[in-house]
Amino acid sequence: MPVTSSRPVCILGLGLIGGSLLRRLAGERPAFGYNRSTATVNAAVADGYDASSDLPQTLTRAAETDAVIVLATPVTVLGPIVDAVVEHAPDCLLTDVVSVKEQVARIVAHHHPDARYVGGHPMAGTAHSGWAATDPSLFENAMWMVTTHDDTEADDWLAVADIARAAGSYVVPAAEDAHDRAAAAISHNPHVTAAVTAAVGAGESRLPLRLAAGSFRDGTRVAGTAPELQRAMLEANSVALLNTLSETIDRLVAARDRLRDHGDVAALIEAGHRARTAYEEVAAGEVEPIVGVTIGDDGWAQELRRQAHLARVWVG
Amino acid sequence: MPVTSSRPVCILGLGLIGGSLLRRLAGERPAFGYNRSTATVNAAVADGYDASSDLPQTLTRAAETDAVIVLATPVTVLGPIVDAVVEHAPDCLLTDVVSVKEQVARIVAHHHPDARYVGGHPMAGTAHSGWAATDPSLFENAMWMVTTHDDTEADDWLAVADIARAAGSYVVPAAEDAHDRAAAAISHNPHVTAAVTAAVGAGESRLPLRLAAGSFRDGTRVAGTAPELQRAMLEANSVALLNTLSETIDRLVAARDRLRDHGDVAALIEAGHRARTAYEEVAAGEVEPIVGVTIGDDGWAQELRRQAHLARVWVG
Repeated sequence: MPVTSSRPVCILGLGLIGGSLLRRLAGERPAFGYNRSTATVNAAVADGYDASSDLPQTLTRAAETDAVIVLATPVTVLGPIVDAVVEHAPDCLLTDVVSVKEQVARIVAHHHPDARYVGGHPMAGTAHSGWAATDPSLFENAMWMVTTHDDTEADDWLAVADIARAAGSYVVPAAEDAHDRAAAAISHNPHVTAAVTAAVGAGESRLPLRLAAGSFRDGTRVAGTAPELQRAMLEANSVALLNTLSETIDRLVAARDRLRDHGDVAALIEAGHRARTAYEEVAAGEVEPIVGVTIGDDGWAQELRRQAHLARVWVG
Repeated sequence: MPVTSSRPVCILGLGLIGGSLLRRLAGERPAFGYNRSTATVNAAVADGYDASSDLPQTLTRAAETDAVIVLATPVTVLGPIVDAVVEHAPDCLLTDVVSVKEQVARIVAHHHPDARYVGGHPMAGTAHSGWAATDPSLFENAMWMVTTHDDTEADDWLAVADIARAAGSYVVPAAEDAHDRAAAAISHNPHVTAAVTAAVGAGESRLPLRLAAGSFRDGTRVAGTAPELQRAMLEANSVALLNTLSETIDRLVAARDRLRDHGDVAALIEAGHRARTAYEEVAAGEVEPIVGVTIGDDGWAQELRRQAHLARVWVG
């Protein structure tokens, strides 16, 4: 099967991520979607998109057109969705846009042992959710992690990476566990610290909130995300999050003891500044492409992962 | 002395805050400044502002014109600056734009027991510093805390509040300790959590930083502020910060234990969401003015503070 941008895409779940992807890909290639809620489907159809609340029918259509199926539902309802895929579209290539990769891979393997599955995770989002918040430019220049194992099929990997590229994103190849540790460090732990910063800040009266300026506003922004969405994301990655959360606590306890006993917060503030500076260098610098790899050649997956650890991305 | 917008202002220290204030007030009223660094003074003069590196001369001029003196240096060098005020301009009304109010009040009282002093703190800033970062619109619609005690002189309070209003800010009346607790909760603690979030995020390779998206970018923004500026601000408010930091640790430990033992982070995420929602209501709502108070009438200071705890501001 040649990988071309005309390959259909079937998106299951039309919330912020799935809905934005449907908006982005429709017009460039056949793209259709399913959502359980008829209100969401009606809104999508009213906006001119091809959406249905009939899962078997949608999956049958995916099977007939050899569409790539994108799992875009909350992880909590993924099992029954994959069961339906087994029944109606067992041969279709599967990917997903759910945040935690080890858990999704386990669910897919459990419900669909023969699945052709290559995981994905676009690092994009807003504090809003649902079809009303969807935006076709959500993925523009975002990093889109694509699971890259030594036994990943090259054509399947290319088909999934091609979706990420078509959405405007760069492809970051990674193993599932490395992705989940990274996601805990730079996405899930920041949600925890935003929550605690907000909770501590809302003090004894409305005076503190009235005085709050940029540091509080930016530092607590993601605490505004719907709690159930945050919980689903964080609790699905609990092992990696426990590690980053414990490291966070250890560093804060050391800083508190140092401040109490010696009056300074130098070590923590300087470590934070170094880390932020490193981030700004990566974020502001040119996006460096992975070079010298032909997908499918001997050792291609290993070499992609190696270069990704240097902050390089696959651009095709 | 009538409070009018033509009263001169003498700003000691032309970094981000003092320099931005000079830019804002110059043209509206006589405004001149001092900075220890001739490079900063030359830059300010080249931009058309009235600045000098001669502290005695600047203060003598303040005394001759009955200027309000704005202390805008780092808190660490405030003592010698106030000594010079005692020598050259002992009768001038003093205010400041340094973040921590109990400490500044102690320094002023120690070095200048007879000072007419009304503290101030504009809740505005950026991650940048120095004259090059100054911006006359920095204070636009910001909250500017003005110390409001039962024994504060009404005319002095009005003169300081008038500077905040002239800079484009709203006036938040507060006692020094209430301000410092609030500043720890909504400014200093967010710097600590930003630092730890950044430090934990910069993990085992450059891969996590490449994957970092909005939650990490916004949550760690203030970790990019120069470490010495962060330290000066945080360490000056160590007592209040120790309390908020300990509360932060307690809440994170409870969340970590709950996640480990029961697999959920509900309590923390929901508390954070409630707090952020309350903040957004305050920030997005109309700014409510303090009403029914004439400055100088019996109990005016107490009534200003009472209404400030309802998130109201003084607008003159």
